[in-house]
This record gives sequence, structure tokens and C-alpha cells, in this order.
Amino acid sequence: MDRPPPLPPAHTWAPLLEAALAEDLRSGDVTSELVIDASATGSGRIEARQPLVVCGLELAAAAFVHVDPGVHFDPLRRAGERAAPGEVLARMHGPLRGILAAERTALNFLGRMCGVATQTARYVDAVSGTGARILDTRKTLPGWRALDKHAVAAGGGENHRFALDDAVLLKDNHVHAAGGVGLAVKTALAGAPSHLQVQVEVESLEDARAAVEAGADALLLDNQTPEQVRQIVDALGDRVSLEASGGITLDNVRAFAEAGAQRISIGALTHSAPCADVALELEDDAAGGVRA
Amino acid sequence: MDRPPPLPPAHTWAPLLEAALAEDLRSGDVTSELVIDASATGSGRIEARQPLVVCGLELAAAAFVHVDPGVHFDPLRRAGERAAPGEVLARMHGPLRGILAAERTALNFLGRMCGVATQTARYVDAVSGTGARILDTRKTLPGWRALDKHAVAAGGGENHRFALDDAVLLKDNHVHAAGGVGLAVKTALAGAPSHLQVQVEVESLEDARAAVEAGADALLLDNQTPEQVRQIVDALGDRVSLEASGGITLDNVRAFAEAGAQRISIGALTHSAPCADVALELEDDAAGGVRA
Amino acid sequence: MDRPPPLPPAHTWAPLLEAALAEDLRSGDVTSELVIDASATGSGRIEARQPLVVCGLELAAAAFVHVDPGVHFDPLRRAGERAAPGEVLARMHGPLRGILAAERTALNFLGRMCGVATQTARYVDAVSGTGARILDTRKTLPGWRALDKHAVAAGGGENHRFALDDAVLLKDNHVHAAGGVGLAVKTALAGAPSHLQVQVEVESLEDARAAVEAGADALLLDNQTPEQVRQIVDALGDRVSLEASGGITLDNVRAFAEAGAQRISIGALTHSAPCADVALELEDDAAGGVRA
Amino acid sequence: MDRPPPLPPAHTWAPLLEAALAEDLRSGDVTSELVIDASATGSGRIEARQPLVVCGLELAAAAFVHVDPGVHFDPLRRAGERAAPGEVLARMHGPLRGILAAERTALNFLGRMCGVATQTARYVDAVSGTGARILDTRKTLPGWRALDKHAVAAGGGENHRFALDDAVLLKDNHVHAAGGVGLAVKTALAGAPSHLQVQVEVESLEDARAAVEAGADALLLDNQTPEQVRQIVDALGDRVSLEASGGITLDNVRAFAEAGAQRISIGALTHSAPCADVALELEDDAAGGVRA
Amino acid sequence: MDRPPPLPPAHTWAPLLEAALAEDLRSGDVTSELVIDASATGSGRIEARQPLVVCGLELAAAAFVHVDPGVHFDPLRRAGERAAPGEVLARMHGPLRGILAAERTALNFLGRMCGVATQTARYVDAVSGTGARILDTRKTLPGWRALDKHAVAAGGGENHRFALDDAVLLKDNHVHAAGGVGLAVKTALAGAPSHLQVQVEVESLEDARAAVEAGADALLLDNQTPEQVRQIVDALGDRVSLEASGGITLDNVRAFAEAGAQRISIGALTHSAPCADVALELEDDAAGGVRA
Amino acid sequence: MDRPPPLPPAHTWAPLLEAALAEDLRSGDVTSELVIDASATGSGRIEARQPLVVCGLELAAAAFVHVDPGVHFDPLRRAGERAAPGEVLARMHGPLRGILAAERTALNFLGRMCGVATQTARYVDAVSGTGARILDTRKTLPGWRALDKHAVAAGGGENHRFALDDAVLLKDNHVHAAGGVGLAVKTALAGAPSHLQVQVEVESLEDARAAVEAGADALLLDNQTPEQVRQIVDALGDRVSLEASGGITLDNVRAFAEAGAQRISIGALTHSAPCADVALELEDDAAGGVRA
Repeated sequence: MDRPPPLPPAHTWAPLLEAALAEDLRSGDVTSELVIDASATGSGRIEARQPLVVCGLELAAAAFVHVDPGVHFDPLRRAGERAAPGEVLARMHGPLRGILAAERTALNFLGRMCGVATQTARYVDAVSGTGARILDTRKTLPGWRALDKHAVAAGGGENHRFALDDAVLLKDNHVHAAGGVGLAVKTALAGAPSHLQVQVEVESLEDARAAVEAGADALLLDNQTPEQVRQIVDALGDRVSLEASGGITLDNVRAFAEAGAQRISIGALTHSAPCADVALELEDDAAGGVRA
Repeated sequence: MDRPPPLPPAHTWAPLLEAALAEDLRSGDVTSELVIDASATGSGRIEARQPLVVCGLELAAAAFVHVDPGVHFDPLRRAGERAAPGEVLARMHGPLRGILAAERTALNFLGRMCGVATQTARYVDAVSGTGARILDTRKTLPGWRALDKHAVAAGGGENHRFALDDAVLLKDNHVHAAGGVGLAVKTALAGAPSHLQVQVEVESLEDARAAVEAGADALLLDNQTPEQVRQIVDALGDRVSLEASGGITLDNVRAFAEAGAQRISIGALTHSAPCADVALELEDDAAGGVRA
Repeated sequence: MDRPPPLPPAHTWAPLLEAALAEDLRSGDVTSELVIDASATGSGRIEARQPLVVCGLELAAAAFVHVDPGVHFDPLRRAGERAAPGEVLARMHGPLRGILAAERTALNFLGRMCGVATQTARYVDAVSGTGARILDTRKTLPGWRALDKHAVAAGGGENHRFALDDAVLLKDNHVHAAGGVGLAVKTALAGAPSHLQVQVEVESLEDARAAVEAGADALLLDNQTPEQVRQIVDALGDRVSLEASGGITLDNVRAFAEAGAQRISIGALTHSAPCADVALELEDDAAGGVRA
Repeated sequence: MDRPPPLPPAHTWAPLLEAALAEDLRSGDVTSELVIDASATGSGRIEARQPLVVCGLELAAAAFVHVDPGVHFDPLRRAGERAAPGEVLARMHGPLRGILAAERTALNFLGRMCGVATQTARYVDAVSGTGARILDTRKTLPGWRALDKHAVAAGGGENHRFALDDAVLLKDNHVHAAGGVGLAVKTALAGAPSHLQVQVEVESLEDARAAVEAGADALLLDNQTPEQVRQIVDALGDRVSLEASGGITLDNVRAFAEAGAQRISIGALTHSAPCADVALELEDDAAGGVRA
Repeated sequence: MDRPPPLPPAHTWAPLLEAALAEDLRSGDVTSELVIDASATGSGRIEARQPLVVCGLELAAAAFVHVDPGVHFDPLRRAGERAAPGEVLARMHGPLRGILAAERTALNFLGRMCGVATQTARYVDAVSGTGARILDTRKTLPGWRALDKHAVAAGGGENHRFALDDAVLLKDNHVHAAGGVGLAVKTALAGAPSHLQVQVEVESLEDARAAVEAGADALLLDNQTPEQVRQIVDALGDRVSLEASGGITLDNVRAFAEAGAQRISIGALTHSAPCADVALELEDDAAGGVRA
Repeated sequence: MDRPPPLPPAHTWAPLLEAALAEDLRSGDVTSELVIDASATGSGRIEARQPLVVCGLELAAAAFVHVDPGVHFDPLRRAGERAAPGEVLARMHGPLRGILAAERTALNFLGRMCGVATQTARYVDAVSGTGARILDTRKTLPGWRALDKHAVAAGGGENHRFALDDAVLLKDNHVHAAGGVGLAVKTALAGAPSHLQVQVEVESLEDARAAVEAGADALLLDNQTPEQVRQIVDALGDRVSLEASGGITLDNVRAFAEAGAQRISIGALTHSAPCADVALELEDDAAGGVRA
């Protein structure tokens, strides 16, 4: 990735950050208040404990600063970069109580976001050289849409529609209600604002042809085998944008790419990404200490 | 599990539900608005697609009702129950546009919550018969503390402290700042409100003894081998509550339990639980349809 | 209009409604509390006082019900319908204090929304028969995006992109930064998610050609005369979607439509629509009265 | 106007500003992110494109700074001042992406607020020399009460009551419920907190007399002709404050003022003010550009 | 009091109620969840434990219903009524867990609101027959302005200005800044919206005269003795509204009333009112119980 | 008190502060805007007017800074310190309008918080030398839980459980539902998370014995005489933590302490604490003044 994907606007994640800090801090960090002096300061570093794709350092920074504006946080890596185990991702210095109070929330954000980016990169790597793009879905964690999509972009994936309103995507229920693929596409094209793409889910070459005849901008090939995908690509690949989805894993994703799917969307990028292992280590220079 | 764990109060999850619906619906479900009549109604069922522990049907219900109060949602299973692939977890009936608009958000909640409950149950099953309890940690998804803890309880786990303020837990940094395990415990006991438990992290038998001498209510045995755990249990198990944590997997959790750890806390219950596979199927009775 | 446009989801307007009621009611309606009995009830009707296109009755209804759930509100017309002066748009019955406390807020919403719909219909009528579509812009009232767009749809207009994220629209500053029309379009196409349309603003036939060559999905012809529009339509109208904008009034809009502009976007639909004249009349059956 | 009217406290407009930015930015400004470098900076100026009364530059400033705190915004004029076409109202410098992302929202606020101030000034000018004051009403845009009232003050108008609770205003329905003008006034005076003015709507000289006899502090002469106003002024003008309202336009407002109305309230100041034409021009010094 | 004062609009207290329930319930009522069955129901009554003036039953009701909509709450007394020790103020029936979870919050509201009403009534009783009115001040509990003012009204007091914006009240610092009482009043009258009363604080007869000459609507006699009040009343009582404030207690309030003060404002009505003693008793019909 | 208790995290009080300022300022401080120049500055000091325990200066500071970030506020005393009448608690300097607009809200917070701290200190002083701790209850002012608990700590008291979820406290209704003290305790111990203390309310020595036998961590001796408390202390004081509550006043609190109660909880610390008398005095250096 040449450049880091832009962090989404703060209004998309600031309420989540505030909720996360509030649910963890509640009435205060009683442990630190008992044994750490209010005036104690310290330094720390955030390290990768596994190979990962970096994402979310801005959220970690915001967590520390939100708890105590006196914490100084230096990110050392940018979203989208790869880090090896042991690499330092960020350094911080400031009031020790503040650092300890925000630590868990900061790491929870970072572990999740690096986790999604890293999971995405595994799929992107798997189709390397085929020209296929790896896309996310709307199967993001509730409340996390913007951050999950950002992490997918950091991992080298492409963002599918953000919400229900920025593209028309006719799924099986819509096709059924409209009376068939062709009718569904025509109805949508007639009524949709002209800047919205009209995509339709198809499960056979016949339906794919009908969709293209009706004017669909893109097809979603749902739960097809790579062989079925190839048939549709061969027949229609030069007339319409094609996306494969459903039942795609790290083991078979390359087969879909090689079958000619230009875009491959995968729910597991966001709904089942394991947390990446990151940790905060305090330096030995901490000043302050027991209140006794 | 005899009884379902109580759903946490609505104020702990309603803002997350509203945010999740807003981020997915935004200005509206353009696709359904184009091809589904406003007056069309339909029925649907939510099915398990894998063996799972049920959790989160109240959230799914709330998602549908929030989008359209005319949707009637019948949960058929209770939190904590096990379901086989193909089992129907809930049925619903009502305005088709509303059902389709809330579908993804409802399933995203349900998949996450069943996923955490199911992940927890795997660990609980693994220590079956040993008397050990499986506990969660504060490594929950930001914004999800209450729901993640609820899902752990549904899976048969025990909830560790909810936040930083409902127990004193002296970790290595606190011990270091206080000048040693004994001093840390004594300082905490002297200053803490008397209703709060004082637990301390120890990494050796020697420290464990010092903690017990100082009056600690509980010990956290961090990153110990089952053998090390057994030594501490043998020496101090009748004098203090013991909890093992760190480096515990499905493969080794039983060894820790058999070593005598009364409580075993595991971050992966919540930070890396795969989404459970659940799906919504519409019945054939849908009335309404294409707007053309 | 065959069917009423769907009201946007409540999360897009409920905070505005609550803010509007709060800013008008504040600590209470002292006047009514002084002279109207708490138990007094009454009936009222909302009338058009000018020819108008109906829009916003749901907001009026919500205002009354929010102030007093005991108010029963019956809308008699649907969004998008035309009403003559004197026509009754809705009837209500319920606690008199509640009706009077919500009256101004309800009418302020209704007047604004009918005003925008009516303004839009004037432009739609002006291009009648030409096949041209009238579009809104992002020049909506701050906080009113969803309601203003809904009112435009009620008036027969088409909604342009809702926000900055649901289409790429390269304006002069973007073109300048990118080093020209062609380069801007190519850069955008290379990086944009594939479901997003790429539109570019052009001010000459030459630029229009460059944009089409580069693969633009749509052109925005800004501040062109009808004659200039016709030239571009003649040259490129079969290869790209064309939208005219800038300097368009009720007096000249038909000239643009007849010049072949398929889409005509007009800021004045929303930034300068006069309020429509609507009024609430109480019926003579009011029961209750002076508190003396 | 000697001094600018004070901007209302931030709590009255900050939520509206945040909502306005959120509804326009949503998940981000995809266009600028594609073709403008994150590090690009630029300068711009806001110009009047018509004769106008300045109002709302603080809101424009807040929009830019909210999107990017690195934008430096210099207002050059103060609320209430008049500007000619072409005059520069403000200059800014800073990150180009931030300037472009906030541009539309900033201009939407400014156009509305200058529009209301300018509309007010037209009426104030029309009664110049008569001693009459031009007042607003509660017919403000929902959610905009504080900003609309501020813009009226900037235009030289006087603010009528802000909300339902800061003055008693007995309208026809209240008079009807109370059993007549005199009874309504007496009931109100007996029960109202003593710091609240009691005003009553009257439609005849006879009612006006009754109101004054009963002790009303002020009369609202609703839908009267200038001649009718004059009669009431002649009879009661030295005993009570008089306000005319209803059916007043730029064409007849002076007649009302010359008839002796001390205060003239006009809904159109806020419910139908056309947007003022203001624009942002970028300077040629922009640094940065295409990401390719 | 003939009629109960109207409860202020919900937007003035609903956020406080929600905050109060959230801060007490947090993640749930663990005690009841352990020993009370989810299906257990019960009945309860709220009793006065001291002589008191009733106020706040609507808040208590809202607390129970907010926690569990299945709780049925019957208020038996109205705001402003007096109750003797042992009198039942309300009855309720419903889910036992819900009743117990909301109990403390409901009683905390009720104790505070009855406390303020009862405190007010003591002062109102003390001036009985003199014609003087007892007023509150802005010394209300932060966040409680609307409820505190409502409780004062329930206790028979009159509400002074609600906030800084619904009357002009020139205090010593304003007078000092303006260059004297007369100048302050004249400046205020010249600039204030005509519906706002102009009151000024005076500390001598001389200043009182100057204020009246300048046209003040009302005087605030601050920290005067009853004798000083009487002097000003004798000199100016027929020309201006007079309010005494400062240093007024239950012991001396009647002396101020008898000295002719028409209005007497007292901060202690709200800033130091003791909580009224109210309690919830469960009936013996509770069904359900231990979960064991 | 050696060290000041830590101020609770901002999320626990910032919404209350914002609500308090909004309810007092509403559309602005009309009085100051009329007679104080926007550019006027001044200095002030906050003084104690009675002997008090300091608490809440951070809230006062936040109020001034929230209204005008240009106000510089210097606290001179720390929470928990005692101040004599006339002592200066803080000094400030900055824009005069801002100081006056925030004054009342700042003092309202400070008077309440010093009031609770001072009330607590009276009880703490009364048991001086006995070793007994004074505790608060959940009878805090709705919305004020965190600040009230902080003020109790500043006054030298100990904080009882913050909310319903951080300890099990079996009251009479729970005991009744569970079928007796022993059964209630056993049920709770079996089901409660192990980090939560289990306390039970008892009203006789017999019940106290049953509770201890069942394994209760602590007893709540409700409405017992000092003599009854002594009996239970003598019998069980070395086996369980004992807390007395109910009917405890400044007059009898020492008797309870001398009877051996280790912890004494008192609702009146927070539900009936009189406001402490604090005042803001402006210095003579104010610059600026009348707008005339």
C-alpha cells in the first residue's frame, strides 16, 4: 500500500471511544489510585507480539489523551504498514495513572483493528498477482462500521458499500419480490437516483444474462463454485462488473480469483477476525509510586 | 445452565443498538424502497447454521422493533441453551421493508453474541467435572462490555470484574510501584473501601506467600505452567482464592483445571471469538412486492 | 407521482424534532397553563392556505404526539399530493394544552417541508414533457439534509448524492489539484471503490471530451448557457450522463431541459424555498377552559 | 448598529453544527481523499456575491476548525455590518482536505444567517425614521431558534419572546377558552410569575380597551389594517405597549409604522428568508495535489 | 393550592432520570438477580414518614416504568397536597425485580422533591395572611432547575426567573460596571427586548429612588433589615414591585412580610432543603422468590 | 486526610455540568450583555463564609472555563482541607461577561460539594478515636452519585458500594424472598461472581449468627440500638465485618462507634446536607463597563 487510508471522521468513532472508556473506568481506577501517586509519571511502548498489519494507533492515542491530556503519544508506524513481532508501534510518556487507566481500552481498540487489517492482508496476499480485489461486507461489528471498514482498507482490501443507502444491491428476497432478476433490475434502474450503482445477486448464468440485458451495473455471484464463476466471467465479464461472495475461505480464495472474479467479498474479514497480539510495556524510568 | 443469565439493563446496550442501526440504514434502505411495497408483509425465521449456544435474541428482537414497531418477533430459545444446525431460534412477522432493513444488524448482533457464548462453552466443556470456573477478562470489544460479559455468562462462564472500579487488582506495574507484593497488598487493604476484594498478580510461590501473608483476598497466577499452579495450590489453596491466567488455550485449559486452579480467566473468550453462523430465511407467504 | 417517497428513518430527524420542541417549550407553555385546564380537550384541523405540495405531515404528527401521547392525529393527505387553498391536510383530537404547546413546532416543520416540495414542483412542472429530471444539491439547511431531500422527492425531484461519501464529484478545485480533468478522472477511477460513480465538473466541450475519454460516469456542466449545454449534449450525450447546474431559475430552466440536459440541479430548491402557508384551526367543540 | 449582537452560547448551536457536519461528511470526503494529498495546504477567502448584512462567520469558523483544528480562520467583518458584492468576509489557511470537507457546511450556515439578517434589514430600512421596531416571531426553522433570533438581531431587528415560557401571550384560542379578553388577562395576571409580561391578542378596539382595563402589559394587534391600528394607537397608545402582526409585507410595513405601531412582528424574517449568496474562493497558492 | 402546578416538560427531567437510573443500576441489580426469580411479582406502597407536601410522584412513577414497563404505578395524591405521617402516597404492582431495582432512585427523587416543597411550605405558612409571596432563586441544585422550581411551586411558592435570559436583573456588579443605579437601569431599558422586565438590586432608599426614576420595573432589596424594607415600601411601594432577599430565615421571614415586602426570595428553599422521609413497603402478596 | 481523594473521571460529571450551565444560561446572559462590554475583564476570588471542608473547586473551575476558555482559574485549596470563614479558596481572572455568566453555576456546585464534605466531617469528627468509619449510602441526589461520593471521601468518609452491581447486599425483601437469612446468603454465595462481597441485613443476634454460619462476608445491622450492636459485636465481631445503619444522628453516632460498629452508614451525609456558604467577590480592577 502506497499511502495510509485516511482515518474516518471523528464523529464516526468518538462516541464509541467515549463509551469504551466509560464502561471500563466507570467511577475510577481504584487500584492505581491506591498505589500510584497522582504526580507519578512514566514512559511506555506498544509492541507487536505477532506479525501484523498496523491499524488503529490513532484510536489508542485518543484513548490515552482522553483520559489524561497530559499523556504524550508518539505513533511510530502508519496504518497499512506491516510489523514484525517485537517491533515498537508507538511510545508514550506522561502521568502514570492516566497511562494505566487507558491501557486496556487502547489495547482493545488496537488489537481489534490490527486484527481486522491483518486478516484482510492474508486474503489480499492469497490473491496476489491475479488482479482480484478483496472486499468487505456489511457483516461488521455493530457500532464499528467505520473502524472495521478502515481496518479493511489498511489491510489492502476495498470497501464495499458503507451502508444500505449508497448502492442498490438486489438480493434474492428483492428479486423474488420483484418477480425475477430482469424485472428487479429494470424497476431499480427506473427509480433509483442516477448516481447509485445497481447490483444484483444471481445464482446462475441464465440469471446473470438476464441481469446484464436489463442493464445491471454489477453482479453478485453468490455461493458459486470457482467453475461456475468462470462460466459467467467468460460469458459476461466484459460487459459488467462481477463480484463473488459466499463460502470463500483462505484455502479457496485464489481459485475464485483465478476463475476471473474481479471482486471477492468476504464477511470473515470483519465478523471473525482474531484479535492481534499487542502489548504495552512500561519503561523503568517511572517516577512516583506507593502512596503509603 | 439452569436459568438464563439476565440481560443487562437497556442503558448498557441501547445506544450501541441505535448506533448500529443508524450506521447501516443511514438515509434509508434504497433497495427495498425500490422493489418492495410499503404495505408488503412477510414472515421469517432465524436459524442456527452450526452448533451453538444461544445468546442475543433480545438484541435481534430490539433491532427489528426499533426499525418498525409493527414487526412481531418471537424468540423460541433462551440465552444459554444449545442449538443444533438447522434449529429455528426465532420467528418474526410484519412489514417486509422493516424486516429487510433490520436483518443485517440483527444478525450481526446475534452472530457475535452466540459466537462469544459458544466460544465460552467450549472452554467450560473442556474443564467439565474439575470444578474449575471459566472467567472472562476486560479484553472485551470496545463499547461491548455489557453484552460480551452477558454472552460469557450465557456460555456458562463466570464474569470477572466488570470495570476498573469493582475490585482491586494489583498487576505487575502496581506491585512495582508499591515496592513489592506485600507492600502493595497492605497499602491497598488500608485504603480500599471494605466491600472491594483485593487481588494481586503473582509470578512465583514466594510472591504468592507474601501476598497471602499480607492479607490478599485472591491471587492472579499469571503466565504460570500447570505445574507451577499446582505448587501454589498445594501450598496456599486453602487460604486464598486462586485464578490462573495467560497463555491458556483449549488444548491446555484442562491441565490448569486439574492442577487445582479454581478460576481460569481467558481473554480469547471475547477478543477472538469467531462469529456464529446464523441466518434469516423468509417464508413463502410474503405479500406485496414490486412497485412497478 | 405515483407513490409517496418513503419518509427517511427516524434517526435522521428525531433529534431535530426533539431539539425543536425543547427550544420552543423550554420550561413549559406558561400561557396555556394559566388559562387552559389540564383536563380540557379539543379538536383541530390543519389547512392549506395556498396551493401546495404536501410534505411533512409525519413530522407534524410526531410533534403533537411527542408533547402529549394522548393527541390523536389523522393525516388526510400523503407526501407528494397537491392541495388547494382551504383543503384540510390533517385532523387531530386530544388534550388542548398539548395541541397548543406543539402547534407552532408542528407548523414550522410542515411549512418548511411543504415549502420545499412546492418549490421543487414548480421546477418539475416547468420542464414537464422534456424528460429532464430536477435534482437537489448539498445546499440544504444545516441539520435538515434528510428532510430537505425527502421534500424534494415529494415535489417530484430526484435526489443527488446525499453526502460527500456516496459518489465521487470532482469539482474545479479537485481538477486543479489533480492537474487537469483527464488526470483527475483517471486518479479517481483508479482509487475509488468500484460501486461509486465518478462525476466531474467541466466548463467547456474540450474538458467534457477529456472527461469522457478518461472514463467519467457523469459530467457536471457548471454555469453553462443552454447553448453550451446543447453543444456538449450533441457531442457526448450518448456516451455519458449529463447534469447542468448553476444560474438556473424558473425562467430559464426549460431552456436547459430543451437543450438536452438530462439532469438539472438547483440549490434554490432547498436554500431559498419560501415557507408554505399552513394553519391550524381549532374546532368549536373544545371542552374545558379558564382555570379561574 | 453600534455593536454586534452577542453570539448565543455554544450549547444552543454546537449540536446543530455537529449534526450538519456529520450529515454531510458521513464516512468521509471520498473525492478529496482521492485527489488531494493529506499534507496539501491552501488558502481561501469567503466573499459576498450580493449586498448583504453579515452574520454567522463564527459558525463558518467553527465548521472549519471542527473538521480540522489546523485550519486558521480570520473573520474580517462583524455581525450586523453591511457588505457589498465582492467584499471579502473572511480568510482562511490550512490543510486543503479540511477546507474542502467543511466548505459546504460552512457556506450553508453563512448563507442562511446572512440571508435572515439581510431580510430583516430590508424591513428595518423600510420603517427607518418612524421609531417602530421590527420583531421576529416563533416561526423560526426547527432547531434554529437561537441562530435565527441572532440573525434577526444582526439585521437590526428586536427579538420577541424566545420560547413559550418567557412571556405570557394570550392568543385567540386562549381568550376563547378563558371566556373573553378581560377574563383572560385577569386570570393570567393572577397566576403568572410577576416577572413575566402579559400580552394579549386583540382584533378590535373594544377588545383592546377591555385588555387595558384588565391590566394587560401589551397588546398584539393581529391582522389589522393600518387604519385599525391607528384607531387603537390613538385611543390607548399611551397606556400600553402595542404590537402589530399578520399580513405585513415590505410593501405595507411602513404604513403600519406610520400608523403608530411601536412594534411590528413578521414571520417572514425567518420562515421565508432567501439564502444570501456567499462563496469560497481558493487562492492560487495551494500546495499539494493529486495522489497519483 | 387549588390546582397542582403542571409538571415541567419531560425534556427538562428525562435525561436526569436516565442518568440517575444508570448510575445506580450500572450493569444490573446483582442481588435481586441472585435471589429473586425473574417471574416473581409483588405489590408495594409508598408512605410518608413525616408531615410533608407531596411532589415528584410522576418522577417516581417514571423510574419504575423505565426500569420495567410492566410495573403499574398508581399515584394517590397530587403535587401540592399535604400528607401526614403514615399516609400512602402511591401504590404499585408488577415484576419484583423491577420494583426493587428502581426503588432507591424513585425514593431519592421523591425525597428531594417533597423536601423542597415542604421546606417552601414552611415559609409560605410563616407569612400567611400578609399577602407576601415566597420566591425561589437560581440557587437550585445543578441539573435540577426545572424540578426544583416545580417543587417550589408545589409548596405554594412563586417561581422567580427560570434562567439568565427571561428577565433583566441588574446586580451590584452590573450597577458598578454601568456607573450607578440610574445609568444601569436606563441602559438596560434602552437595549432590552420590550417583553423583559428590568429589575435592579438596591441597598439604600436613595438608590431605590434613582432606580424608580430611571424606570425600573422592580427592585431587589438585598440584605436589608425589615425596617429598611419598610422605609422603601413606604416611599416607593405604590410605584414599583419590591422584592426582599438575603439573610431571610424562618424566624424573620414574617417580619419582612409585615414590613411590606411583596415578594421574598430565599435560596434555602432549594439549596438546603432536607430530604423528606418517604419509604416503600412491599405487601405480603409477593409471589416468587429464591432461585435455588 | 493525608491526600485529596481523586476527582472521579470527567464522564461521570461533565454531562451534569453541561446541563447545569445550559439550564441557567439558556439563550444568554441578557443582563451582562446589556451593561458589560464584551471586552471587559476582571478578577475575582471565591471565599468561604463559614467553616467548611473544601470540595468541588475542579467543578467550579470547569464551569468558568466551559463558558469562556479565556477565564484563568487558580484553586488555592485541595479537596479535603478545612477552611475558615473568610479564607480565599480560589482566584480567577478573565472576561467579565464569562465570569458573571458562570458564577451562579460554579457556586451552586461548590456550595453543594463543600456542604456534603462538611456534613461528613461532622460525623467523622464525632467518632474520632474510636476507629469507626463513617460511610455513605445510595441515598445520593439523582444524577450526583459520583460527585456526592467524592464529597463524602473529601470529608473523611468511606464510600460504600457505588451502585447495585459492585457488591451483593441482601436486604429484608431479599431475605424474605429467599426464605431466611441463611438461605439467602447461601444462594448468593453460590451464584455471585467470586470477586463480589456478600453482605446481609440482619435485625437480631440470631439472624446475625445464621448469616455468619452461612458464610456472609459482612452484616448490615439495621435500626439496632447501640446496645444491640454491642451484643452482636461481642458475639461475632471477630468473624465478620459489621456495619450499623438506620436512625443514626450526630447525637448518637458516637454511641454506635463505642458499641463496636466498625462501619456506620448514614444517608443524611448526602440526602440532607445543607449547602455550604461560599461567595464570589469581584476585585476592584475590573476594566470595561457600560455599553452606552
